[in-house]
Amino acid sequence: MDNLIEHGLLYDFYGELLTDHQKKLYEAAVYEDLSLGEIAADEGISRQGVHDLLKRCNKTLDDYEEKLGLVKRFHKIKEKISEIQVLADSDLPSQETLQKIRKITDEIIEEL
Amino acid sequence: MDNLIEHGLLYDFYGELLTDHQKKLYEAAVYEDLSLGEIAADEGISRQGVHDLLKRCNKTLDDYEEKLGLVKRFHKIKEKISEIQVLADSDLPSQETLQKIRKITDEIIEEL
Repeated sequence: MDNLIEHGLLYDFYGELLTDHQKKLYEAAVYEDLSLGEIAADEGISRQGVHDLLKRCNKTLDDYEEKLGLVKRFHKIKEKISEIQVLADSDLPSQETLQKIRKITDEIIEEL
Repeated sequence: MDNLIEHGLLYDFYGELLTDHQKKLYEAAVYEDLSLGEIAADEGISRQGVHDLLKRCNKTLDDYEEKLGLVKRFHKIKEKISEIQVLADSDLPSQETLQKIRKITDEIIEEL
């Protein structure tokens, strides 16, 4: 269930839109790293049932990202913040460095 | 309908989760600044109907923000970006300025 891990970030953003039951099983699979069989046993449902539910969760999370694209937006901002960090870590403070930083902040504001 | 304007930002984030019909009327009210009466006439529904629909839209947008808090997160980031801009606009480039900027970027990364 490798793709579950990729979905962890989507879950961080949109997880609260899942039902409590979905959240419980999703967290068991992704964060507690339990197997489908273990979750099935804990919940008293079939392995297939757990599989289907998790698949549905991923679909729901994907749909929210498709519509809202907030994870993508946050990613872009994070990249630009990293660029600022590289500049801020430079040994030679100069007007040019500050101007570059300023330019990146303008780009971030556009994303926000 | 002053609070509709306040909801504009929520709409920017979560508007895609409304139905097409809701979006149409919401945009007419908020972005085209049409009155309830005008929208009602355009849509062939009652003024009360428009009012109720818009109220429901706001409730839906509020509920999403209550659960996800993404507008609040973006606001915090925006404030910190502004702090960086003030520092980047300072006339005296110094190690201290760069260190302050670096500190703020760390705080932003924590929000992301």
